[in-house]
Amino acid sequence: MSDTKAVVFDLYGTLYDVHSVAQRCDASYPGRGMEISAMWRQKQLEYTWLRSLMGQYISFEQATYDALVYTCNALRLDLDKATCDVLCEAYLNLSPYPEVPAALRRLQDIGLPLAILSNGSVFSIDSVVKNSGLQACFLHLLSVERVGVFKPDPRVYAFACQALDLLPAQILFVSSNAWDASGARHFGFDVCWINRRDSTFDELGVAPSYVVRGLDELPEIILATSPARTAPD
Amino acid sequence: MSDTKAVVFDLYGTLYDVHSVAQRCDASYPGRGMEISAMWRQKQLEYTWLRSLMGQYISFEQATYDALVYTCNALRLDLDKATCDVLCEAYLNLSPYPEVPAALRRLQDIGLPLAILSNGSVFSIDSVVKNSGLQACFLHLLSVERVGVFKPDPRVYAFACQALDLLPAQILFVSSNAWDASGARHFGFDVCWINRRDSTFDELGVAPSYVVRGLDELPEIILATSPARTAPD
Repeated sequence: MSDTKAVVFDLYGTLYDVHSVAQRCDASYPGRGMEISAMWRQKQLEYTWLRSLMGQYISFEQATYDALVYTCNALRLDLDKATCDVLCEAYLNLSPYPEVPAALRRLQDIGLPLAILSNGSVFSIDSVVKNSGLQACFLHLLSVERVGVFKPDPRVYAFACQALDLLPAQILFVSSNAWDASGARHFGFDVCWINRRDSTFDELGVAPSYVVRGLDELPEIILATSPARTAPD
Repeated sequence: MSDTKAVVFDLYGTLYDVHSVAQRCDASYPGRGMEISAMWRQKQLEYTWLRSLMGQYISFEQATYDALVYTCNALRLDLDKATCDVLCEAYLNLSPYPEVPAALRRLQDIGLPLAILSNGSVFSIDSVVKNSGLQACFLHLLSVERVGVFKPDPRVYAFACQALDLLPAQILFVSSNAWDASGARHFGFDVCWINRRDSTFDELGVAPSYVVRGLDELPEIILATSPARTAPD
């Protein structure tokens, strides 16, 4: 990792907990919150992959909306416009994982530029980051919107290199999503997989460079593997 | 549908029941057969989509193998080589859905050329079709292997047009997989979605041209919408 010149983070599920929408789902559909949130997230991902493959790109907000409509249809739940708006709005107000704010500040102290590379639109990324008060942590907020295709298409990872003016091997990419970590590793990034829930890494032909159980473990790894860097007092 | 010159079928889950492997799974892992089969199939699909997006094509057999390894890891089940071979072999011996053989013969009698367009390799498609004794029904068995990417990439549907020397609007594509039906519809095929389990169609921006509950309903639809065709005596 001694070549690392920047740390680039996935957003949904990595820095921010997508299942923080479960509470709002539960308020609208008592007792069904986690079930809705889980299917909604799974379909949201599938729709980004399938739309990319079909050459039918839509915004992340539209994929999120479509996935919610599917989920409510599949679970035989009525979805009126007001409820739909409230639930989609919840995706703009996600909570960071508890250890994230302090860990980001510690990474900033080490002196590495931090960026986000997300499937979200420019508007969604800005909203989530600002609503959680973490905008000062990041030098770049990079959206696939500029590329017109979703991760793990390699053009998305290439866009990060271009925006940061760095080579793939100079970027440490951090994701909790094994499919995203795999795509980034195939592209040539160093990759840290955050495995908070003792999950199984996907069998997609590559392994992550590092595995941690929370973002708070990352600063020590960077310091241990980058002799030139020293911990600030 | 009056322009239809050929009927092209998806294989896995459309003509053949992928969950016919559940019984073999159950023999190896008593009581866990359906759970394994369901996760295995979901991951198999995800791996074909993700590998395609990453530009890291592998054979369908390899995706099937990788998905089984993931599934057993995720479910904390030991998977030895012999069991792995037996279970992957089961994907070459799938059962057609009960109504399929008679419905295919009825479609042949109407005089339409029938073909398969599948994510499977040439070897897998040949094996499944021959092992079920249905090889005489099909004029073409088309594998994505020749294209080097999986459905729903539009190049796969274009390959069927090329192999059959037909325009998209001259092909009726039949699939039980809503994502496949959507990809084919975006490409420009007429599409019949077989919805055997009262499922919800995906929200991917298109609707199927026809919906049936089993393949046995298709011949009547073709006859009703193609005035030039007459039912054989």
